[in-house]
Amino acid sequence: MKIYLAGPDVFLPDAVEIGRQKAAICARFGLVGLYPLDNAIDLAADDASRRIFAGNEAMMDQADAVIANLTPFRGAGADPGTVYELGYMAGRGKFCLAYSNDGAVYTDRVRRLMDVTSENGRLVDAQGLTVEDFGLPDNLMMIHALELHGCPLVTPAAMPIDVWHDLAAFETCVRMAAARAITT
Amino acid sequence: MKIYLAGPDVFLPDAVEIGRQKAAICARFGLVGLYPLDNAIDLAADDASRRIFAGNEAMMDQADAVIANLTPFRGAGADPGTVYELGYMAGRGKFCLAYSNDGAVYTDRVRRLMDVTSENGRLVDAQGLTVEDFGLPDNLMMIHALELHGCPLVTPAAMPIDVWHDLAAFETCVRMAAARAITT
Repeated sequence: MKIYLAGPDVFLPDAVEIGRQKAAICARFGLVGLYPLDNAIDLAADDASRRIFAGNEAMMDQADAVIANLTPFRGAGADPGTVYELGYMAGRGKFCLAYSNDGAVYTDRVRRLMDVTSENGRLVDAQGLTVEDFGLPDNLMMIHALELHGCPLVTPAAMPIDVWHDLAAFETCVRMAAARAITT
Repeated sequence: MKIYLAGPDVFLPDAVEIGRQKAAICARFGLVGLYPLDNAIDLAADDASRRIFAGNEAMMDQADAVIANLTPFRGAGADPGTVYELGYMAGRGKFCLAYSNDGAVYTDRVRRLMDVTSENGRLVDAQGLTVEDFGLPDNLMMIHALELHGCPLVTPAAMPIDVWHDLAAFETCVRMAAARAITT
């Protein structure tokens, strides 16, 4: 089973090393991890971003499953680039797994960043936009997509000190993918 | 042509009215707009969020195309729930369109929210995470997906005063969808 390793990990200073570690964990379970930075792209090229996209999409098309890192990125929710990839894989009928190293419910995540008030029975942010309040860690589309198209979101019992480098929840996803690989 | 109307519009105080306006614009061009809030969901039900998901997914499966509102939501990038839906539709091979009422490049959007510095030739945010710097308005996965799976992102020449209610860029997307509907 080939697994596309989606996540804002590619934005870390040690992005390549994290990819190596994730692929090594996959290999321990007999799986192949495909990591976006495995594609050699010339970042100085005029069309570098298009080449990155094409490489990522080809990798996703080649993969049987995705493990997405939905740890909140630059805000209350998951990285939109990663979420795009999760949606794409669900749409393609691939097996979908994900983890978040922050298991807090979405309303609490938003409260960390801004005031949340109650208005006519709904929670609203500073702009007056509704704050989703279903006791889920992120937008319901991703959370329920995982249940339907793969396995429920994995979160740690306690938030790791280093949310960007702790791979315990990731490894749980790999175990679940390996169990699935045996049964199919 | 049936068009799924994705966007954080559902979080506006006048979410139902915006959906009506969007559907009316679609109808003017001979198209059918499908809006998430058209699904009657009992929000008091224990499994309300799962029912919303199921309703949205069924609507997407029924639609031929998507117009996603990628206006920045509660941060520098698009609403992850909307982005999930865009990815899902791309994965299903549907025709993908989107607009953002904020055409600023992503680096400038992040700069509005936090300090961005240069470190070893890459731009980084306060957490040391790379800030994508390709001169695009949002994460490259969505921007290039639109070019490949539909039409390039539509942005207004100048940011509207009310980014959540101005529907000019949305209407441009509808025109493009209508042109596509004629040729296919």
